[in-house]
Amino acid sequence: MSASQGLNDCSRGYATQLDNQDTLRHLRKEFIIPTKADLKSKTLANSASTSENDDQPCIYFCGNSLGLQPRRTSERIISHLTSWAKKGVYGHFTQHEDSNLPPYLHVDDFAAKLMAPLVGALPKEVALMQTLTANLHLMMASFYRPTEDKYKIILEGKAFPSDHYAVESQIRHHGFDPKEAMILIEPESSGSPTISESHILSIIEKHASSTALILLPGVQYYTGQYLDIERITSYAHNLGLTVGWDLAHAVGNVPLQLHGWNVDFAVWCNYKYIDSGPGVIGGLFVHSRHGEVDLSARQDGGAGFRPRLSGWWGGDKDTRFKMDSDFVPIPGAPGFQLSNPSVLDLTAVIASLEVFALTSMAAIREKSIALTSYLEDLLLLAPAAAEFDEKCLPYQIITPSNIAERGAQLSLLLKPGLLEGVMKALEDAGVVVDERRPNVIRVAPAPLYNTFTEVWEFVHIFKVACLKAQSGR
Amino acid sequence: MSASQGLNDCSRGYATQLDNQDTLRHLRKEFIIPTKADLKSKTLANSASTSENDDQPCIYFCGNSLGLQPRRTSERIISHLTSWAKKGVYGHFTQHEDSNLPPYLHVDDFAAKLMAPLVGALPKEVALMQTLTANLHLMMASFYRPTEDKYKIILEGKAFPSDHYAVESQIRHHGFDPKEAMILIEPESSGSPTISESHILSIIEKHASSTALILLPGVQYYTGQYLDIERITSYAHNLGLTVGWDLAHAVGNVPLQLHGWNVDFAVWCNYKYIDSGPGVIGGLFVHSRHGEVDLSARQDGGAGFRPRLSGWWGGDKDTRFKMDSDFVPIPGAPGFQLSNPSVLDLTAVIASLEVFALTSMAAIREKSIALTSYLEDLLLLAPAAAEFDEKCLPYQIITPSNIAERGAQLSLLLKPGLLEGVMKALEDAGVVVDERRPNVIRVAPAPLYNTFTEVWEFVHIFKVACLKAQSGR
Ligand SMILES: Cc1ncc(COP(=O)(O)O)c(C=O)c1O
Ligand SMILES: Cc1ncc(COP(=O)(O)O)c(C=O)c1O
Repeated sequence: MSASQGLNDCSRGYATQLDNQDTLRHLRKEFIIPTKADLKSKTLANSASTSENDDQPCIYFCGNSLGLQPRRTSERIISHLTSWAKKGVYGHFTQHEDSNLPPYLHVDDFAAKLMAPLVGALPKEVALMQTLTANLHLMMASFYRPTEDKYKIILEGKAFPSDHYAVESQIRHHGFDPKEAMILIEPESSGSPTISESHILSIIEKHASSTALILLPGVQYYTGQYLDIERITSYAHNLGLTVGWDLAHAVGNVPLQLHGWNVDFAVWCNYKYIDSGPGVIGGLFVHSRHGEVDLSARQDGGAGFRPRLSGWWGGDKDTRFKMDSDFVPIPGAPGFQLSNPSVLDLTAVIASLEVFALTSMAAIREKSIALTSYLEDLLLLAPAAAEFDEKCLPYQIITPSNIAERGAQLSLLLKPGLLEGVMKALEDAGVVVDERRPNVIRVAPAPLYNTFTEVWEFVHIFKVACLKAQSGR
Repeated sequence: MSASQGLNDCSRGYATQLDNQDTLRHLRKEFIIPTKADLKSKTLANSASTSENDDQPCIYFCGNSLGLQPRRTSERIISHLTSWAKKGVYGHFTQHEDSNLPPYLHVDDFAAKLMAPLVGALPKEVALMQTLTANLHLMMASFYRPTEDKYKIILEGKAFPSDHYAVESQIRHHGFDPKEAMILIEPESSGSPTISESHILSIIEKHASSTALILLPGVQYYTGQYLDIERITSYAHNLGLTVGWDLAHAVGNVPLQLHGWNVDFAVWCNYKYIDSGPGVIGGLFVHSRHGEVDLSARQDGGAGFRPRLSGWWGGDKDTRFKMDSDFVPIPGAPGFQLSNPSVLDLTAVIASLEVFALTSMAAIREKSIALTSYLEDLLLLAPAAAEFDEKCLPYQIITPSNIAERGAQLSLLLKPGLLEGVMKALEDAGVVVDERRPNVIRVAPAPLYNTFTEVWEFVHIFKVACLKAQSGR
């Protein structure tokens, strides 16, 4: 189903109307939207702005790369800094009456509990720790246990480079040859960079008997394609295979049901749609069935839990400070924790998750579908596209038009030679999007803080930018 | 050599005199010292304090666990938050004229350069990333490459639990049996928990032919013993063995010369003597000789670099955003990076390192030796100890008395039954130290912010606390 139907009204007034109907519009004020002057300023201090226009908020459609800052983030962080300043090491155990932050010792559980509904997990299936790529390695240490017969990892040919490197190095780590053991899924046709699910399933089937792990993106970073996680996971399970998911672009973007979909494990970062700041602590999901700890099995000489690379913070909380050398993991995802986590980072994540807790992923998704469909409509439909040669737009949307197969982001493939000029014009106009050279820009209206009017304005500015770049001006 | 000689003057006045002579005393004001009221307060907001005494700074001797907060930390963090709020994703590339923080893209190098002198490394030998235990795993993935003949890891029997678990799980990961492959160094005599270097060397020699890795602490967390890193490393190298160092309690405490000592690798955290906050991002050192990247070797079919678990942030900066799938690491420690790092955390580390840059590790060590020796003297020497039965102190210092074999910390073994009462009395008096059940308290005057007068006061309060606990009051 495409939402690109029946946009009759291409006026700015209609965008205003959509904003007025938006049930999440009150959430925009939870965020600090940079002004156009802010983006241009060479200082952090407020500069006397040069023009009235510069005082206007910019159009920030780059939440797929680095989300905007919730207003409450700095408040929460100052609370945390005050706690550390006033309590020192006692902060590990102190609950302050006038702070909603927990003692440091429990901040991991506290944050995981807030995160769980966003990914459709039980609280014990989520851990916030390390960073995406590190978590991917830690998960592979547990879930990629190759044997002579089953050693391959299936992933996309155009996986995010960090995932590619991580997989390649894991394969080498176990003494296999990436040339043989890395099965790269490439698009079927050279005309489209998206990958059909049937193609993915066919490759999984083809290599099933020699495959040890599948790694796929929930939402593909380049094309914005949203894969059917449940279907692919279930297909792989039927073949006895394990699937891990990179949810960098999915978490906070689309509603996930990781527990219900029976996902084995997943990893993500929290600096994109979660809005917790550059490089902030990441997250992981381990399905409850993989996180079990069975102490009776230990008495029989078994390990009693899945193999993993361990650290003290994954150890049972009651015995953690006894400092003995017998590792008994916390059941669930926290049992994969290694270290006492950054309270500063977790505080930023908690602040963001408080904003998410003001609504639901279902409501966010509903707005997101409307917002991105509106963007698609304005980009594609006449008369909105009438500025351009009929049927000859200087750009093409490579993201699937089926709303079930995408999240917030649309990726626009520009005609060769336009990217630099278009990006320059957008930047000059105070529009922030993300480029992927040579010819793609990724445009992601974030449902928590973006508006339909911004979409309308973006499309206007973008088309003028294309025309300018085309005419070489 | 013991410094415990010739303390003739046990008066408070003498402590004041030592403070007046302290060339680092101006650095104390760089830190926020909690007041006694702060420690007791149930709120973050300033409470109307109950007594004048409560307005006094507490005595914080717990920098070995969680260091105090530098005053500039919150300033720097607010700068960073402002940059993120005003620039969004442009913050990755923007240098603000009124901020001494670099663009996010270079914050890793910037912080590593500030850290390098503290550990005696070339800037390219340091990376700030992940957490201690994660870094230990990542280093072991590269440096622990067991074979059928050489597979053992030598470590202390009383290693910090996270190190023990990490090593154990790595051994299992490679299919070996920890019972056989973990060689635990235990103290020679049951009378003392410290381990002589000759004993360590003898165990290394005994297992040399079957050992793949040695892991040791620079400063032992429990006893405070400071090992001769250079000597042990060189001894192991002569036997063809690799040694990794856990420097959690050494960094920022004792001057290190990791490059000059030819150390293979080291890992540490930055929340103890570095003062960067609970769970903050960790650090690692890889000697330049292990970090080389030789592209010509690649053309000959070799890898061209040490094996490692990889991620995009370890890839050459110039090609990182080209998003291709050919991993070429940055030469040195940054080539072991996985992910874009937390700018929030690195900002906290940078703030701390700015304070360290106001002096030198040599000056810090000089004060530290004086401070800790003074603590030792007051604890042990008559007439200071005269409150107790002659020759029958209710505590014993288990940290080596040789100043070359210890850092800031003294570990006091209390007579059985005293710990709880002593800790309670110390807490009531606004003294923060760290307990290790059943009978040890660790006392660490931090040379950057502690004073001789605090040491004097601590000893007075501590002795009264012991007397009280002894008499069961
Ligand atoms: C000696 C030592 N090693 C390792 C660790 C574990 O550190 P992390 O939780 O940062 O991995 C600690 C923590 O206090 C420590 O003291
Ligand atoms: C899809 C995807 N995977 C992995 C990563 C790497 O994330 P990190 O640097 O946090 O490990 C990113 C970063 O943008 C990403 O977009």
